[in-house]
Amino acid sequence: MRPIVALLTDFGTASPYTAQMKGVILSHCPEAAVVDITHEVPPFGLSQAALFMEASRAHFPQHAVFAAVVDPGVGSERRIVGLIKDRQTFLAPDNGLLGLVVAAPGPARAFDLSDHATKPWISSTFHGRDVFAPLAAAIAGGERLPAMGPEIPVDTLTMLPWAEPEWNVRARSVDAFVLHVDRFGNCLTNIPLASGEDFLGHWGPMDLLRASGERLAVTPSRSYPDLPVGSLGLLAGSQGYLELAMNQASAAEFTGLCAGDALTLATRNPEA
Amino acid sequence: MRPIVALLTDFGTASPYTAQMKGVILSHCPEAAVVDITHEVPPFGLSQAALFMEASRAHFPQHAVFAAVVDPGVGSERRIVGLIKDRQTFLAPDNGLLGLVVAAPGPARAFDLSDHATKPWISSTFHGRDVFAPLAAAIAGGERLPAMGPEIPVDTLTMLPWAEPEWNVRARSVDAFVLHVDRFGNCLTNIPLASGEDFLGHWGPMDLLRASGERLAVTPSRSYPDLPVGSLGLLAGSQGYLELAMNQASAAEFTGLCAGDALTLATRNPEA
Amino acid sequence: MRPIVALLTDFGTASPYTAQMKGVILSHCPEAAVVDITHEVPPFGLSQAALFMEASRAHFPQHAVFAAVVDPGVGSERRIVGLIKDRQTFLAPDNGLLGLVVAAPGPARAFDLSDHATKPWISSTFHGRDVFAPLAAAIAGGERLPAMGPEIPVDTLTMLPWAEPEWNVRARSVDAFVLHVDRFGNCLTNIPLASGEDFLGHWGPMDLLRASGERLAVTPSRSYPDLPVGSLGLLAGSQGYLELAMNQASAAEFTGLCAGDALTLATRNPEA
Repeated sequence: MRPIVALLTDFGTASPYTAQMKGVILSHCPEAAVVDITHEVPPFGLSQAALFMEASRAHFPQHAVFAAVVDPGVGSERRIVGLIKDRQTFLAPDNGLLGLVVAAPGPARAFDLSDHATKPWISSTFHGRDVFAPLAAAIAGGERLPAMGPEIPVDTLTMLPWAEPEWNVRARSVDAFVLHVDRFGNCLTNIPLASGEDFLGHWGPMDLLRASGERLAVTPSRSYPDLPVGSLGLLAGSQGYLELAMNQASAAEFTGLCAGDALTLATRNPEA
Repeated sequence: MRPIVALLTDFGTASPYTAQMKGVILSHCPEAAVVDITHEVPPFGLSQAALFMEASRAHFPQHAVFAAVVDPGVGSERRIVGLIKDRQTFLAPDNGLLGLVVAAPGPARAFDLSDHATKPWISSTFHGRDVFAPLAAAIAGGERLPAMGPEIPVDTLTMLPWAEPEWNVRARSVDAFVLHVDRFGNCLTNIPLASGEDFLGHWGPMDLLRASGERLAVTPSRSYPDLPVGSLGLLAGSQGYLELAMNQASAAEFTGLCAGDALTLATRNPEA
Repeated sequence: MRPIVALLTDFGTASPYTAQMKGVILSHCPEAAVVDITHEVPPFGLSQAALFMEASRAHFPQHAVFAAVVDPGVGSERRIVGLIKDRQTFLAPDNGLLGLVVAAPGPARAFDLSDHATKPWISSTFHGRDVFAPLAAAIAGGERLPAMGPEIPVDTLTMLPWAEPEWNVRARSVDAFVLHVDRFGNCLTNIPLASGEDFLGHWGPMDLLRASGERLAVTPSRSYPDLPVGSLGLLAGSQGYLELAMNQASAAEFTGLCAGDALTLATRNPEA
C-alpha cells in the first residue's frame, strides 16, 4: 500500500510552514501521498479541528496516518500522543484535538510520544515540522506506534470541555452551537445525525430561537435544492451533524450565526 | 502511466471537503497524483469554472481525469455526466460547467452517469465525495467511461447562457465581459485570442468604454513589462483570452472592473 | 529516489495558474511529488519569497528541485537562472529571489537558462508554466543543470538591496525590519539567529522602539507558552530569524507592525 499522511493544522497557507512539514515527510518516506485536510482552522481552534478530524477519518484508508497540529502549548510540557482507532493512526498534542475521535464508538489505544520532542535540535516553536512530521513519516513507512512510546490509558487523554447539545424533551427543544461555517454559509451544528434525525422526524414544525428572542422558521429538508428559495433549512449534513442551510444562499448571513455561537432549535407547538 | 485526477470546485480550502474527496480517491486508486485546479471558484460560479476547465486541460496529459464540482443542484434530478474529449475524461454535473470544453473544436462523446448517485449510502449534499470522487478514481485506475453509463448526444448537455463577445464591425467595437480577475488584478475577458489577436492587429488605437461613458485608453502589448507604468494594457493572455493588465499594478483597481462586469472595447477612430 | 519539485510563487490559489504548472510537470515527470511552498507571497514580494526559499530548503532532500516564480519582469530581457547549492537545484528569474540562498555559507554554481524561454510557443506572460515547469520536470527527471545552459559567475546574479540589520554596539541597539507576519501574528525579523542569539543573551532587558518614540518592553523567551499572557516576546524562531511573538495573541496587532516595516530593538540600560 502506498503510505498516506494527512495533515490538519492552523498554520494557514501563506507561510512555508506546512511545506517544511512535507519536505521532512518526503525525506523520510518518499513514496507518501501527503493530503491537506485543511490548514485554515482558526488559530488555536481546537473544537473545529476536532470536528474536521472526526468527520474526515472514515473517508481515508485504514493505513492512513493523521498528523493534527493545533498546538497553543508547543514548547511546554503538554504531552504528544499517538492514537490507534479503526487501524488508523492519529498524532496530536494532548489538548483535546482528538476528543471526538476518542469519544466515537469503538476501541482505541493511546501512546505517549513526548520523548520524541526532547532532542536538542528540535525547535521549541515548531513541533509540526520537527516532531510530528518525522513521527508521521516513520509510521507511514511501516514503524509501529506501540514501539515508539509507552501505552497510556485512553481515559487520561485531555478532553475538550465539549459542549454536547442539551435536550429538553418536555419543551421539545435543544440547545446547541455552531461548530463551523463553510464557504457557502452552511452552519454545521454540534447535533449528531443519530439524535438529530430522530428529532427532525418527530418534533413537527420547528424554529430557530435567537438570543434576541426572535424566532425563525426552520424547514427540514433532504437536500439544498429541495428548499424553497429564501427558506432556512435544516439538513442531515455530510459531515455527520445537522446543519442550517439555504438554497444557493448563506444561512450564516441570513441568521447572523458565526462559528462558536450558541443556538436553540425548538418545536413550534410544544403542546402538540 | 501514473493516474492523474484533477479537481475543480467551489468548496474553498477552509473546510475538509476536498480532503475527503482525496481520501476517497486514494482509497480506490492509491497511485493517483491528485492536483487541485482551484477550489476557490466563487460559490456556484459556473462561468468561471467553465473558463478554468477549458484553459487548463491542454496542460495535462491525455490520461488525466478531471472532476469539476460546482453543483448548486446537488441532490436534485440534474444529471451527472462524463465527457471524453482529446482522450481526456471530464466529470461534472450537467449544468454548463463543461460548456467551453464541449464548444471547443474537435469531437467529444458524452455519457450519463446519474445512476451512480442512487446508492442508499450516498449523501444528498456532497456528491463531490460520494459520487464524483469514486467515479474519478475508477476511471483514473483504468475503467472505461463507455462501460459506466449510457452514451447521450453531446448536444443534449446543458450549455451556459454563455455570453460570447458581440462584434460591431462597422463601429469597430466589441461588447464583452470580465470572466475572472486574478491576484494581480489582470482582468480576463471572454474575447478568445483567435478573434482578439486579429482585432488587436487591425483596429488601431483603442479605448475601454465604461458604463459611465468615460473612455480609458488601452495599449496593446506583448508582455507586462513592455507596458509603460500607469498604462492600461491589452494582452494576449496565457489562458486563451484577451486580458486587461498593467505593469506591476492592478487593472481591476484602475478600471473598477470585477468578475462578471460588462465592458466595451472600441477603436478610437471609427472613421479611419 | 522519487523526484521532488517544490513551487514558490505569488500566483495565489484562486486562479488555475499553479495547477497548469503541475499539469506540465506531471506530463514530463509523472512520478514527481509536487509540493507547494506557498503561492501567497504578496504580488512581486521578492524579499518574502527570498526568505521562504532560504528558510525551507534545508527541510527538503538533496535531490529536490525548487521553482520559484515571483517574476514582475516576465517577458522582458531578465535572465532565467539555475543554481546548484548543497546538491539541490533552484530555478528562478534573476531578480534577487535567490539572494538569501546565494548569500548563505557554502559554494554554489549558477547557470544561464534564458535560452529556454525563446521557443515560439512560449507565452510572454506565463513563464512559470511554459519555461520553469518543463525545466523543473527535466531536472527532477534526471537531466543535469550544467548541460542546460552556460555557467555564469555566481556574483553576477542580481541581489536584492537586502537590508541587513544595522548594529549599534555602543548604544546596544539594532535597526531591523519585519520580513513576514504569519497567521498567528508572529513578526519574523531580518535578524539571523546566529547574531540574534548572542544579542538576546548579553544585552539585558530590551525594548521595541516604535517610530513614534514609544517603547514597548520585550521579553526574551524560549517558547510561546513560556511568555506571560499579554507580554511581547522575542524568540529564536523556527525559520532562522528572531521573531516578535505573544502567547496565544498577535504580536502584529499588539505592535501595529506589518511586513516591510522598520523596527529598532534596544537595551533598556545602555550604560549598564
